[in-house]
Amino acid sequence: MAAPRVLITGASGFVGRHTLAPLRRLGFDIIAPTRAECDLLDPGATHRLLAETRPSHVLHCAWYVTHGKFWTAPENLDWVAATLLLAREAAWRGTTRFVAVGTSAEYDWSDDGRTPRRETDPTHPATLYGRAKLATFELLADFLPAEHVSFAWARLFHLWGEGEHPARLAPSILTPIAAGQHALVRHGQLIRDLMPVARAGVALARLLASDLTGPVNIASGRATSLADFARVLAGDRTDLLDLREEPAPGQPLRMMANISRLRTIQ
Amino acid sequence: MAAPRVLITGASGFVGRHTLAPLRRLGFDIIAPTRAECDLLDPGATHRLLAETRPSHVLHCAWYVTHGKFWTAPENLDWVAATLLLAREAAWRGTTRFVAVGTSAEYDWSDDGRTPRRETDPTHPATLYGRAKLATFELLADFLPAEHVSFAWARLFHLWGEGEHPARLAPSILTPIAAGQHALVRHGQLIRDLMPVARAGVALARLLASDLTGPVNIASGRATSLADFARVLAGDRTDLLDLREEPAPGQPLRMMANISRLRTIQ
Repeated sequence: MAAPRVLITGASGFVGRHTLAPLRRLGFDIIAPTRAECDLLDPGATHRLLAETRPSHVLHCAWYVTHGKFWTAPENLDWVAATLLLAREAAWRGTTRFVAVGTSAEYDWSDDGRTPRRETDPTHPATLYGRAKLATFELLADFLPAEHVSFAWARLFHLWGEGEHPARLAPSILTPIAAGQHALVRHGQLIRDLMPVARAGVALARLLASDLTGPVNIASGRATSLADFARVLAGDRTDLLDLREEPAPGQPLRMMANISRLRTIQ
Repeated sequence: MAAPRVLITGASGFVGRHTLAPLRRLGFDIIAPTRAECDLLDPGATHRLLAETRPSHVLHCAWYVTHGKFWTAPENLDWVAATLLLAREAAWRGTTRFVAVGTSAEYDWSDDGRTPRRETDPTHPATLYGRAKLATFELLADFLPAEHVSFAWARLFHLWGEGEHPARLAPSILTPIAAGQHALVRHGQLIRDLMPVARAGVALARLLASDLTGPVNIASGRATSLADFARVLAGDRTDLLDLREEPAPGQPLRMMANISRLRTIQ
């Protein structure tokens, strides 16, 4: 039997790059076009890519993710459109398994995250980004199974690690401390599920290789305060940490995932 | 002051054609490209259309509506994408008012339509068509106001009249009766809001000219059984009607609209 062949979009991105080695270990042949090779916002390019590659599997990680802008950027609409087209072309070309990346921002967090979120919990995105991801999920969950394509939607929680934008939490602690300077953590009281991005790459690869369908939380299942996370990163230099508990309006106190679905494929 | 200029998509369609005269009466200059002039499924064509016409208003009626297929057709995804792109280009080109066509199929009808639906009632589409319309609404309701574009979403209920597909209810009664033949109505027990499509055209035009925002039911507000509707159409030949009350699985017994929002602009 020929090896399964996966088309990965966003393979050079923060999460996508960490899926490559795990996918190879699982026996996948990999097609990972760069943006220069295929601009997914160009429908003609998507059409040609699928016609030429005819992948058995698709792992769709690409999206608009410019730091500080992606929550409200109009480009979210372009990526809804591009994703729907990608799914259309994949189904048309015989893809049998399609996994795409969603977000914890699809859930309703208005209760300040009192309980870890299950995949069946209510959704209610507070941002255009979350809304665009949720709309994409709901449309693909209708469309792909009707086209006999197995479909899973990976809801990523908070990831950190290699390839992170410098303004994000971990680099904002690691970089000054490496230089012997103070690191400021404004909202040490917030509780998050912080998963190393390399682990998320493994989870995505395993999800693709599995037959699990529907939404699947990708997270560690462990609660950490941002203050405790900063202490872990600071190592022997916690003296350089400036830990505060400033109010964080619009940010839920807790954002935790129930990962019982992910556990079934670990 | 220059007359407002409206770009109408789907202007030759079942509903769109009935908006033209009312819009002219309301003082609009009209841009109504045919599909041959501008294929909205071609992003380049949409881009050029908006760049060249720069409408102050957009009335978006176009969608995939092939009778018997549109409920589940993959083309619904293409029209989500095309509509998001149209909105992006319109906002970019200075459009200040955007009205698009939604559907009663966005609502949750699992209670068999016990009460007339208000715009604030729960949504839960049972079809890809309804889901695609709802996803489009939710994304545009986030995006357009953030771009300072006034946005309304016209949820059409059941329309009938000139331009209807021959297989739909009214022609399936009128055509045989005009030929002196029997007309079969299988589900006479179903209660619907049946509005003449020309009235829907007027309502859309008035909605566009108003500053009402968000979802707005477009319907008559009157309940009619399909049997009674058939009797009205049959006129003096009710003797030709074969009225039955066969079970209609998947079809709610009642589908009625609360039209208090529409009434504010009538």
